[in-house]
Amino acid sequence: MKTVTLKQIAEKLNISVTTVSKALKDYPDVSKTTRQRVLDLAQSLDYTPNSFAVSLRMQQSKTIGVIIPDTVHHFFSNVIKGILKEAEKNDYMVILMQSNESFELEKKQIDLLLSKGVDGILVSLSNNTKKFDHLQKVINYGVPLVLFDKISKTLKCSKVFIDDRKAAYDAVTYLINKGHKRIAHFRGDLNPQNSIDRFLGYKQALLDNNISFDPTLVYMCNNNADFDDGYKNAEKLLKDHGNTVDAIFTITDLIAIGIMKYFDDHGIRVPEDIALFGFSNWFMSSVISPGLSTVEQHAFQIGEESAHILFYEIKSKMNDTPIEHQTVVIPTEMIFRESS
Amino acid sequence: MKTVTLKQIAEKLNISVTTVSKALKDYPDVSKTTRQRVLDLAQSLDYTPNSFAVSLRMQQSKTIGVIIPDTVHHFFSNVIKGILKEAEKNDYMVILMQSNESFELEKKQIDLLLSKGVDGILVSLSNNTKKFDHLQKVINYGVPLVLFDKISKTLKCSKVFIDDRKAAYDAVTYLINKGHKRIAHFRGDLNPQNSIDRFLGYKQALLDNNISFDPTLVYMCNNNADFDDGYKNAEKLLKDHGNTVDAIFTITDLIAIGIMKYFDDHGIRVPEDIALFGFSNWFMSSVISPGLSTVEQHAFQIGEESAHILFYEIKSKMNDTPIEHQTVVIPTEMIFRESS
Repeated sequence: MKTVTLKQIAEKLNISVTTVSKALKDYPDVSKTTRQRVLDLAQSLDYTPNSFAVSLRMQQSKTIGVIIPDTVHHFFSNVIKGILKEAEKNDYMVILMQSNESFELEKKQIDLLLSKGVDGILVSLSNNTKKFDHLQKVINYGVPLVLFDKISKTLKCSKVFIDDRKAAYDAVTYLINKGHKRIAHFRGDLNPQNSIDRFLGYKQALLDNNISFDPTLVYMCNNNADFDDGYKNAEKLLKDHGNTVDAIFTITDLIAIGIMKYFDDHGIRVPEDIALFGFSNWFMSSVISPGLSTVEQHAFQIGEESAHILFYEIKSKMNDTPIEHQTVVIPTEMIFRESS
Repeated sequence: MKTVTLKQIAEKLNISVTTVSKALKDYPDVSKTTRQRVLDLAQSLDYTPNSFAVSLRMQQSKTIGVIIPDTVHHFFSNVIKGILKEAEKNDYMVILMQSNESFELEKKQIDLLLSKGVDGILVSLSNNTKKFDHLQKVINYGVPLVLFDKISKTLKCSKVFIDDRKAAYDAVTYLINKGHKRIAHFRGDLNPQNSIDRFLGYKQALLDNNISFDPTLVYMCNNNADFDDGYKNAEKLLKDHGNTVDAIFTITDLIAIGIMKYFDDHGIRVPEDIALFGFSNWFMSSVISPGLSTVEQHAFQIGEESAHILFYEIKSKMNDTPIEHQTVVIPTEMIFRESS
């Protein structure tokens, strides 16, 4: 599907391209009749008004759209910082939107950005995004799109992410080499790719070290994977398994910090009684005691690189040079602290 | 100063308003000569091209601009969340910009936003902003402007902030009532209003309790008031005053957490040896041990309220109803934890 062009409408109505454009932009010097004919054709062509803004844009908007699940998040605020730095360098402005992990809102925001005629869009998917028509629409409209962190492998666009599976595998392998055998995993929602991959990395590390996988040691943190998730599930873990578990690998630091708080409140020592390994290297993980071992994701670099690719695609599009989509895997890094 | 109107230029050049608008928008169907005459007049009228975009805007952009000093900051990411929520409610989009505490960048971003024709602008000033012509320009252009958190009291626009002086006064008074007499203050830069007011609140609390003010107990944290500032100045404090100081009030939690880390590394106990009181109630202040006593600023509410006022002013402007600027002081709250 391609967006309707000025030319197509103009030819169908046998009027000038400029008139069509002015009619759609509601300029005063176009007769109401002409304007109506243009709008009617728009309807009949079964396009949302949005599609016009995009195809009829007269010039670059010098603006990109960014949709993230949550701004109050150490990882995402660093990603945003990286994006803003790169945008500044390219004299672009950034429209920031927060999907609050809502698929419906994400869809609505994509339409808004298209209607706004942004030159490109960066998206980190909400945890509840299981269908991708709204993103396919962006691609069909020929608007450069780059997915980062929470991506869909099926979409034909550039992607920037980390190797969650390998990072998780390495973290758990490290715990095993430290002598831990009963390792629990506090995982994220079932749907997001990074949640799936970190779980698979955890599972694979156990199997490769001849430790049988015990599903009762996997706890779902689907209340937005936050501090309370960790706190509550830590309590559950102790109820279920007493003191038989000797380590926990969590999908994010925030959960590990919730666990730590619960343990601290109940006299359980980290790492003596139980070791902890987080993910994302939140700033606070370096200042709490014991310090939390974790995986550094280089969020700033992810934001910078995603924006960099987006601007490359925007420029290529302007120069009518073919775009080769890129898939960039940002290397992670293990940070070892007292918690393990 | 008012922005030039289409009409003014059109009359001066004796051409149609539409032609002026198209010339400025670089439309193909305007002759190079005409275009040049329009641009030349623009120059001669001594306006930056930006001013045109604003005055020539054909319709509401349904977009607002937000300039903050730093996105990677617990306070500001919560402010942003509040702004985005309110914008979502009003079907507005948010262009986010980060000044990185640079006056020059802030100025440039204001011009960009004006040239973009945003319907309103929210700004939290950079620490290095001592002149306000760029903001006066926004007001002169008739674009609604709301300052929040880091504000200038002199500008005629709406403002949303907290009573930093009172909050600091209450925190230090609390420390005094707890029996502390040698209370140090780790302050922020000399310039920002909130840094000045928190310092004055600290000083006033001492004087009102007959504790003489000792300037050698005030430490400047001008490396962007962060963790390292706290860590390094804690070391300095001990060199300068040994163990004679019994409490520290910091301009932000992050500094207090840096102090805590230094003390933890050097066997100094909080609060037994020295008490700490922070400011801003960063999330991590509730999860570190000892928990940090601090001042809750209600960042989310500040963002929400600022955006709310901005949208009210944008609507008033659209309906040509006179705008009454508001000054809203968001109440703060003392959070008592183990550190004091």
